[in-house]
Amino acid sequence: MTDSDEASYADLGNAGLEHLLPVVHGMGVRFTESEPGRCVAVVPIEGNGNHFGAMYAGVLFTVGEVLGGGLAISTFDSSAYYPLVKGLDIRFLKPATTDITATASIDPDTVAKVTAMAEENGKADFVLEAELTDTNGVVVARTVGDYQLRSIGR
Amino acid sequence: MTDSDEASYADLGNAGLEHLLPVVHGMGVRFTESEPGRCVAVVPIEGNGNHFGAMYAGVLFTVGEVLGGGLAISTFDSSAYYPLVKGLDIRFLKPATTDITATASIDPDTVAKVTAMAEENGKADFVLEAELTDTNGVVVARTVGDYQLRSIGR
Repeated sequence: MTDSDEASYADLGNAGLEHLLPVVHGMGVRFTESEPGRCVAVVPIEGNGNHFGAMYAGVLFTVGEVLGGGLAISTFDSSAYYPLVKGLDIRFLKPATTDITATASIDPDTVAKVTAMAEENGKADFVLEAELTDTNGVVVARTVGDYQLRSIGR
Repeated sequence: MTDSDEASYADLGNAGLEHLLPVVHGMGVRFTESEPGRCVAVVPIEGNGNHFGAMYAGVLFTVGEVLGGGLAISTFDSSAYYPLVKGLDIRFLKPATTDITATASIDPDTVAKVTAMAEENGKADFVLEAELTDTNGVVVARTVGDYQLRSIGR
């Protein structure tokens, strides 16, 4: 991996948001880091607030949830597999009143296991835990997402 | 309760979405029924799809989540209390390829307990389970939301 490869994964993810997930793109969600096993996305508070002056819950859900797709692009063979979200649990811990950064990672052992299972069965489940922080570093929410990697056309 | 009262709760909820939750309003989410203990919201597939031709997960989250607010308006004293969402778990069961309807209700005993607790403590937690169905009646997702009713200015 080089820095330019990492940048291209984030760019690829952002192109996906723009063209394939217009609702998400419209919120201003974008990937800022994407490398094997790790993904970071941000979303602005501008336009995404609720009546308490805090970011709407569904926007926080979204910036956490998209990490599953962003991480799948940089971590697994996206020419052979696509990710699905099966479920997600989100806990709101503090009001989110600034731009928000969501970060998630999975360890190399899990990546190897998921890759092997997908090669054998054409699909494999993986869990992604994300932490959502504001610009002061305060954790405003946590997500636990259940995803499935599926073989394209199998 | 008369039919016109019920209509006005849904109208009140929709005015809230339009003016206080622009992101949600922008998705086309609107309340169609709102009465004490029960709330129904709908969201169109138009403009909310993903690259599989199905509704984006965050939109399904949203149409389920807003029921907590819509139900609070019609069920509790909204001049004295406002609702907060503390967490939500959503399970995606089938692809959502049509307009989606989300329905949730809580029983009168629970309403009475939550009301009494809010009056005593200035706040009270309640759980709302929602079912999301497509236009063929297929359940595409289920949510379990943890909400809190809080006294205004207390």
